[in-house]
Amino acid sequence: MLTYPMEERGTLPLYEYLYRRIRDDILSGVLRAEEKLPSRRALAEHLRVSVMTVEGAYRQLEAEGYLYARAKRGFFVSKLDAPPVPRNAPAAPLQPVSGPERRWKLDLRSNRVDAARFPLSTWARLVRQILSEGGDALLSPPPHQGLLELRRAICNDLSAFRGLSVAPEQVVVGAGAEYLYLLLSQLLGREAVFAVEDPGYPKIRQVYGACGAMVRPIPLDSGGIHLPALRASGATVAHISPAHHYPTGLVTPIARRQALLKWAEEVGGYIIEDDYDSELRFTGRPIPTMQSIDTAGRVIYMNTFSQTISPAMRLGFAVLPPPLLEKYRRELNFYACTVPTLEQQALSRFLSGGFYEQHLSRMRKEYRSRREAVLSAFRESPFANRIRISEQGAGLHFLLHLETQERDADLKARAEELGVRLSFLSEYAAGAPTPPHTLVVNYAGLDPKALPEAMDLLSQVFG
Amino acid sequence: MLTYPMEERGTLPLYEYLYRRIRDDILSGVLRAEEKLPSRRALAEHLRVSVMTVEGAYRQLEAEGYLYARAKRGFFVSKLDAPPVPRNAPAAPLQPVSGPERRWKLDLRSNRVDAARFPLSTWARLVRQILSEGGDALLSPPPHQGLLELRRAICNDLSAFRGLSVAPEQVVVGAGAEYLYLLLSQLLGREAVFAVEDPGYPKIRQVYGACGAMVRPIPLDSGGIHLPALRASGATVAHISPAHHYPTGLVTPIARRQALLKWAEEVGGYIIEDDYDSELRFTGRPIPTMQSIDTAGRVIYMNTFSQTISPAMRLGFAVLPPPLLEKYRRELNFYACTVPTLEQQALSRFLSGGFYEQHLSRMRKEYRSRREAVLSAFRESPFANRIRISEQGAGLHFLLHLETQERDADLKARAEELGVRLSFLSEYAAGAPTPPHTLVVNYAGLDPKALPEAMDLLSQVFG
Repeated sequence: MLTYPMEERGTLPLYEYLYRRIRDDILSGVLRAEEKLPSRRALAEHLRVSVMTVEGAYRQLEAEGYLYARAKRGFFVSKLDAPPVPRNAPAAPLQPVSGPERRWKLDLRSNRVDAARFPLSTWARLVRQILSEGGDALLSPPPHQGLLELRRAICNDLSAFRGLSVAPEQVVVGAGAEYLYLLLSQLLGREAVFAVEDPGYPKIRQVYGACGAMVRPIPLDSGGIHLPALRASGATVAHISPAHHYPTGLVTPIARRQALLKWAEEVGGYIIEDDYDSELRFTGRPIPTMQSIDTAGRVIYMNTFSQTISPAMRLGFAVLPPPLLEKYRRELNFYACTVPTLEQQALSRFLSGGFYEQHLSRMRKEYRSRREAVLSAFRESPFANRIRISEQGAGLHFLLHLETQERDADLKARAEELGVRLSFLSEYAAGAPTPPHTLVVNYAGLDPKALPEAMDLLSQVFG
Repeated sequence: MLTYPMEERGTLPLYEYLYRRIRDDILSGVLRAEEKLPSRRALAEHLRVSVMTVEGAYRQLEAEGYLYARAKRGFFVSKLDAPPVPRNAPAAPLQPVSGPERRWKLDLRSNRVDAARFPLSTWARLVRQILSEGGDALLSPPPHQGLLELRRAICNDLSAFRGLSVAPEQVVVGAGAEYLYLLLSQLLGREAVFAVEDPGYPKIRQVYGACGAMVRPIPLDSGGIHLPALRASGATVAHISPAHHYPTGLVTPIARRQALLKWAEEVGGYIIEDDYDSELRFTGRPIPTMQSIDTAGRVIYMNTFSQTISPAMRLGFAVLPPPLLEKYRRELNFYACTVPTLEQQALSRFLSGGFYEQHLSRMRKEYRSRREAVLSAFRESPFANRIRISEQGAGLHFLLHLETQERDADLKARAEELGVRLSFLSEYAAGAPTPPHTLVVNYAGLDPKALPEAMDLLSQVFG
């Protein structure tokens, strides 16, 4: 009969110890397939444990398939494949997910806003308030399209500041821009061909590509996406940023907007109006959105709060025109909302309490002066006569054309040696020719006090 | 010359009023394409406003494309298409996103846990603590795969309670199970063919289907997914829940697990081990995961905290085997993490402080007694001799077979009239035949005190 030194079980419960020993004997072949095990009572007496202990071990072994029971006959060893050698850890030490980011003396590539500007104390107060109210609301799953109170607050903000008149029912809340791209790709279907701006924000084409959609990069002219190229591409969806294109800063004029809407109607397609960065307009008033002049339900408007509130809070939204909304509810309403209820409640109060627009207004003021300081520093730099700046009074970046005989790659390499991270327009292009020696200057992280040092470093880079 | 009653501008700034009037005249055709506008100085004098005001209006009109400037000649009206009639609001009133959910007297369909069990005060304390520490960490975007401290805490928990020995580098954090299915679908590629359990959790096949992947529902036998059917399906990925299948409660025995691993090696495919609901095991010890007996790097382990913490917090994770991890980093690392930093920090402290396992242990105790109460109520009910219950001592549901001559649809209709929501096994099937009159009883929301009334209602339903 099976004999195990039960006193060696250490801190394990008896049944667990017995289970392990029998399992080991099955895996090592001491107990063979189809072998009958002692009856519970017999083994219990033999090992001086209770019948319940043996029962517990046998039932566990049965549940895991090491044993099988036959009515009135007892337990038998199952036929197993050669027992696997457990291999729990990866074979080789793994690379860390991402190394510590290099500390640059000057980083013109990162377009991350200064997090310190965010009124964290206000946000924290709202979160504390919500937590103290507690209750079911905080633990209930949000509705598929997002909390109604948040969608209402978004609509009110869009109406007051972007001239959009849309219903909360049209709004779909999601965990950031990329998740919304994923949803839109599924909503617009397998056959959709996505036109994207070239140059443009690389993640847009990466996400659509990863979704298996056909992606057509379309070159830009001075008015935005090039219409004849768009027509020729066979695209059915144009993903564009008419308010302020990244990274060129282009603003799409009204005539082009109308022509694009007409194109969408003609091909039965859609325009995804990605309003990224539209909040940071420093001169003039905001440009009316395409959504607000769309008469045919062909525009999907979208934006996120990553840039304006914090990239740590993953929250964006899309506004669907009514026919697409119906399709969404028919085909994709099984997706649970990806944003936690707590974040949705906090943002909803942040918006409806007016804190968001207050914060934007402070941000605009801060970045307007930062922008001016940066532009004058460039204009008064030792290399001022070799540069030309293109900017549209908006956003956290501008283009800088440098007169040089050097190759961009050489400039970049020298910059890196000096601890300067440059970003060239060509890096945003999928295939469209871009003017050489054209830098995208992301100035959001540039401290005005550090500008003399920054110009000094750039002098060395530009040679 | 253009003449506008500037005194009628109300509260609008002068330039804004002027901009609007000129825009309206362009859109209505009063100002024609190619028409030259008065010089800034001339119009300013005419309207008795400053040159800056006219400049502001003209520049805005130019930025939006209503005007264009010619060097040294001034501003001209652009050629526009027929002006669109703004249509901002949807044509018809929209259906609300979702009506108020029907209040059922008895709901056996919802598998939502009792939110009141969650130690919200502990969670709130952790969140307050994090908020009070404030700082950059809270406003920085989380790394692509999730915060390292959270991935470490997850690994420790997996090691202690699920026998997994995995590195934090292998963990990818995402906004809930469905988002992870999306990512896995992209990771495994266009050509992957997904085998799913039939019957099974419908969202799994819905998400893969929406991703454009080929989905093959595979019938189950008493050991889980049917291996010959799996082989015949041409599938390369099997998405399964070996620990506790929803909704049948099946546990996949060790021999079948080994055979499935062998299958994955043979076809060069993968097994997605969806460990949903594995925490709520009431008898015996937890079954070892497939991940822990996988010797060939063919298992992707995944789970979420939606059921055990709250569906309001969208957080799940996948553990990738090393070769897939490399592919993930190469191809999909552009995706930003979809879970807010605050939630990640809170969960990380909830796990490493031991609160999670404490909570699970309380949940198990609570649901074990609830389950026992529910099972005895059924066994002592007036219809006890007409039912047969299949359950595996785990999870928040069991199957109930009813002896009846009536059609399931008729039973369901009568139930609804009585305010009772039933759920049949057939509703989870994609095509596989399921035994008739088999109810999935989700008891998580059943208040033990209300059991006599529940049995009374079911007596009426079962006739």
